[in-house]
Amino acid sequence: MHQLRKPYLLFLGDVALKSDAKTAFGLRDWCRADVLGEWSLPEATVSLDLPRLSPAEAARQGAGSIVIGVAAVGGVLPPQWLSELEAALEAGLDVVSGQHSRLSSFPSLVQAAQRGGGRLIDVRHSDQSFPAGTGRKRSGKRVLTVGTDCALGKKYTALALTQALHQLGAAATFRATGQTGVMIAGAGVAIDAVIADFVAGAAEQLSPDNAPGHWDVIEGQGALFHPAYAGVTLGLLHGSQPDALVLCHDPSRDTIETYPDFPIPDLQVAIDRYVEAARLTNRAVRCVGLSINSSSLSDADWASYASALSTRLQLPVVDPLRGGVAALAQALLPL
Amino acid sequence: MHQLRKPYLLFLGDVALKSDAKTAFGLRDWCRADVLGEWSLPEATVSLDLPRLSPAEAARQGAGSIVIGVAAVGGVLPPQWLSELEAALEAGLDVVSGQHSRLSSFPSLVQAAQRGGGRLIDVRHSDQSFPAGTGRKRSGKRVLTVGTDCALGKKYTALALTQALHQLGAAATFRATGQTGVMIAGAGVAIDAVIADFVAGAAEQLSPDNAPGHWDVIEGQGALFHPAYAGVTLGLLHGSQPDALVLCHDPSRDTIETYPDFPIPDLQVAIDRYVEAARLTNRAVRCVGLSINSSSLSDADWASYASALSTRLQLPVVDPLRGGVAALAQALLPL
Repeated sequence: MHQLRKPYLLFLGDVALKSDAKTAFGLRDWCRADVLGEWSLPEATVSLDLPRLSPAEAARQGAGSIVIGVAAVGGVLPPQWLSELEAALEAGLDVVSGQHSRLSSFPSLVQAAQRGGGRLIDVRHSDQSFPAGTGRKRSGKRVLTVGTDCALGKKYTALALTQALHQLGAAATFRATGQTGVMIAGAGVAIDAVIADFVAGAAEQLSPDNAPGHWDVIEGQGALFHPAYAGVTLGLLHGSQPDALVLCHDPSRDTIETYPDFPIPDLQVAIDRYVEAARLTNRAVRCVGLSINSSSLSDADWASYASALSTRLQLPVVDPLRGGVAALAQALLPL
Repeated sequence: MHQLRKPYLLFLGDVALKSDAKTAFGLRDWCRADVLGEWSLPEATVSLDLPRLSPAEAARQGAGSIVIGVAAVGGVLPPQWLSELEAALEAGLDVVSGQHSRLSSFPSLVQAAQRGGGRLIDVRHSDQSFPAGTGRKRSGKRVLTVGTDCALGKKYTALALTQALHQLGAAATFRATGQTGVMIAGAGVAIDAVIADFVAGAAEQLSPDNAPGHWDVIEGQGALFHPAYAGVTLGLLHGSQPDALVLCHDPSRDTIETYPDFPIPDLQVAIDRYVEAARLTNRAVRCVGLSINSSSLSDADWASYASALSTRLQLPVVDPLRGGVAALAQALLPL
């Protein structure tokens, strides 16, 4: 399980495209209170509109980590980034990275970490060993976001649902299973980086016993209908032993993204398959609603789509960006 | 993918219980032609009845590897084993281990390997990186053994089925997904040790494109109904894209082994769930029969059990140890 030191300084490198800084924007939007400021090279043309702080200044203001908030081309950190990260390490900050290449593969970072005492944390990787799953029923309540595909709003929905539960006065904790989620939460596990045998066990540890009325809102991964990642999805589903599922979907997709031979199933079929699989570790599991990424639809089309789908499936249908997820939070409370 | 150097010298350490030497007996029984002999300490009281060869003698006779064929208590190799393994390494042999602890964690073995040029190979671990699954349809035929639980004959059934296909004149290759299987085949991948995201991709690489009439007989792992390991099972199932499934079952078990709260489903339900999941990557998949571990049944009980089950499911029902698996091989050939 990763445990990150907040507050953060967000590092943007020499970013020129806003879309390359998705992680930094996500952190600014979802854990603003944990972000002291931003830092970048003079060449950068994208800003988060946060206070500019050098690593040394951020350390003086109490920062715990500098977080690489941009994607490095090919996963290799360019030399001009390295000197800034070394400065952060020498100021005692941890460096947090979600890149493919490990921070420890850069000798200058290893040396700077030894000098300054900061840690090198690769949230995309998982070096911890986990026990096998036990299937033991845990106390507290759990909801897991599942999807008809990858990358269509499972993290966003879980974050929004956590906020909506708080707004209803419920105790709720976002549980992160992907790299950006771990950075936002400051804790969690990149579940797809765990050794296959221990995925369910890691998911069990991610949402331990809790108070009876407390909700863990668990970020889903992958999809049961995905030819590469369904195993991860199933292990996470079993270890999470959710009381409730929220199905996330993007109506503009007919097939799994970049897998044109793999159709996305009918939504009732998808719900039935998820509930059938989840019943292994929680017989009482139910789907409480759908979270739609409706960015491809006009306002009028969204209204009629949501209304027709809600009538057909007899479930609340929301888009977190169009009206929020309060209906899902309300559906959870009676459980 | 592990690639081992045959022929083998089987090492028994100071084994006193036959059951601790399961791996060595499995190798003797399933790849006798690849085994030059056995070696053990004077304290050992179990023998495989093979020629006794010291590591140096085995190396002179052309051995490629010494294989640790016994379980070490707590996974820690005792000092008296280490000196024999060092001698093997100095004679140029590879050391092959299925223990939990890695061979490279023993400095004296690392040093001996450097001196002699042999490799340290931990078949329980997987240090290779694999690509994500593609779902691309491959040429050739594939059959996967699946189960209602772990440890009830999936490897044994796959090995027997490979032999039975050969006896019918068919081209067939056993594809190993567990440590003992990898040792027997001399190649394969410990699929449960792969990073979760790449299980389906590793399974795809394990059974690459092949001749149209060739059968890959793939060793299954885990069970879809297992609260700890179902994710591994599903990833292997999707990556294998099997044309045929054989369901393995032990009628003496009502619940998953060591998980008394998890019932084993009805066999028709189990078949339906496996076929439903496997259809994602091969629409034409079917279950061709059942392989039963009937060691708990008398001859008379086995006969009536097999007959009733075969009638109910309309499928061949065999026990590899009671009459063999020819009926399964015959069921494959028309596919």
